Amino acid sequence: MTARNISRFWEWGRKIICVGRNYADHAKELKNAIPSEPVLFLKPPSAYVTEGFPILVPLYTNNLHHEVELGVVIGKAGTSIPQSDAMDHVAGYALCLDMTARDIQDECKSKGLPWTLAKAFNTSCPVSEFIPKERIRDPGNVRLWLKVNDQLRQSGCTAHMIFSIPYLISYISEVISLEEGDLILTGTPKGVSAVQEHDELQAGIEDVVSMRFKVARKDH
Amino acid sequence: MTARNISRFWEWGRKIICVGRNYADHAKELKNAIPSEPVLFLKPPSAYVTEGFPILVPLYTNNLHHEVELGVVIGKAGTSIPQSDAMDHVAGYALCLDMTARDIQDECKSKGLPWTLAKAFNTSCPVSEFIPKERIRDPGNVRLWLKVNDQLRQSGCTAHMIFSIPYLISYISEVISLEEGDLILTGTPKGVSAVQEHDELQAGIEDVVSMRFKVARKDH
Ligand SMILES: [Mg+2]
Ligand SMILES: [Mg+2]
Ligand SMILES: [Mg+2]
Repeated sequence: MTARNISRFWEWGRKIICVGRNYADHAKELKNAIPSEPVLFLKPPSAYVTEGFPILVPLYTNNLHHEVELGVVIGKAGTSIPQSDAMDHVAGYALCLDMTARDIQDECKSKGLPWTLAKAFNTSCPVSEFIPKERIRDPGNVRLWLKVNDQLRQSGCTAHMIFSIPYLISYISEVISLEEGDLILTGTPKGVSAVQEHDELQAGIEDVVSMRFKVARKDH
Repeated sequence: MTARNISRFWEWGRKIICVGRNYADHAKELKNAIPSEPVLFLKPPSAYVTEGFPILVPLYTNNLHHEVELGVVIGKAGTSIPQSDAMDHVAGYALCLDMTARDIQDECKSKGLPWTLAKAFNTSCPVSEFIPKERIRDPGNVRLWLKVNDQLRQSGCTAHMIFSIPYLISYISEVISLEEGDLILTGTPKGVSAVQEHDELQAGIEDVVSMRFKVARKDH
């Protein structure tokens, strides 16, 4: 194996830690309480998909939702990172989709089961190109948007996150050590909705990056 | 990075997929229903701990449980692997503990939240040395045991798994592609119980491997 290149973190990074309900307007649209501490869940690295490859709808869902999120790519390992040092551990960012089988997630929630089938399936984590840290001066104040077939569905600003990026890095690393190449998904603003086979998703961070994915049905 | 050595899968493997409630006697002791399909959850690779290092009790739990489990180490990548080919994807095994903050898990279950804090914290996945495939002729019929301070707490046979190893490999790989170095934890037999700071855990697979871990309190 050759030296690891952070701009291709999805090829070798070992974990994806996702934060749920980090925007009050999205928590409300799903009728969830505003959390008093971050809600964390995991996707495996096998969930990554990059542009040029389709998002595959799992056979078991009838309600696959998009959630556009700012991803934070870790550049320096750490455990129990203080908030004041947190940004030193960031190598950059990626625009990400937290693809969610909402019907399955609702079933898991009502049965007290883990969210794995709803959140961790293959292609559940589409990612943009890597965005070096310098290209986003203030990650706590950027606008994210997502369109389905040219219709705007999500448009939100990271200024409305309940828990800030430094807070999340500190909180997570207290429990789960962060390593180089890890990705943190920081939650989605309101406007999540279902996608179907043949849909085209476009998403962007204003003035920084945009990406495009087709939705396809998984072969039997 | 040097060539990857499967006998040190914990240093570079990218995911840990765990199966819950795979022994009827354990499902019953926790008052859970016998599942009709496997219950899956994830641990991140940062959860690994090997002999010589302690299991750390997270500060937020008062009820940390041991679960002794047979781990299956994947040697060959695959998606939608048929049961008939499943064992060709196995490189070997490891004895594993699925350390579980039971109080936090109960809270997550009742609130419909993911199990991350209960299952995915640092040192939540103690593992033995790697066991080459040839050393366990029939992984569907081996005895696992676990002692806390020399008292036998768990003793069960993999013959009592509800879902067999080939079934699990096939089921998981339909949703989550398997990669070389991945680990599947196959569930625990009955007898789970709480451990405390200073306890010593010993566990083994009859005639194949044994391991020993100390429990310590995480520093503030
Ligand atoms: Mg993982
Ligand atoms: Mg999300
Ligand atoms: Mg277990």
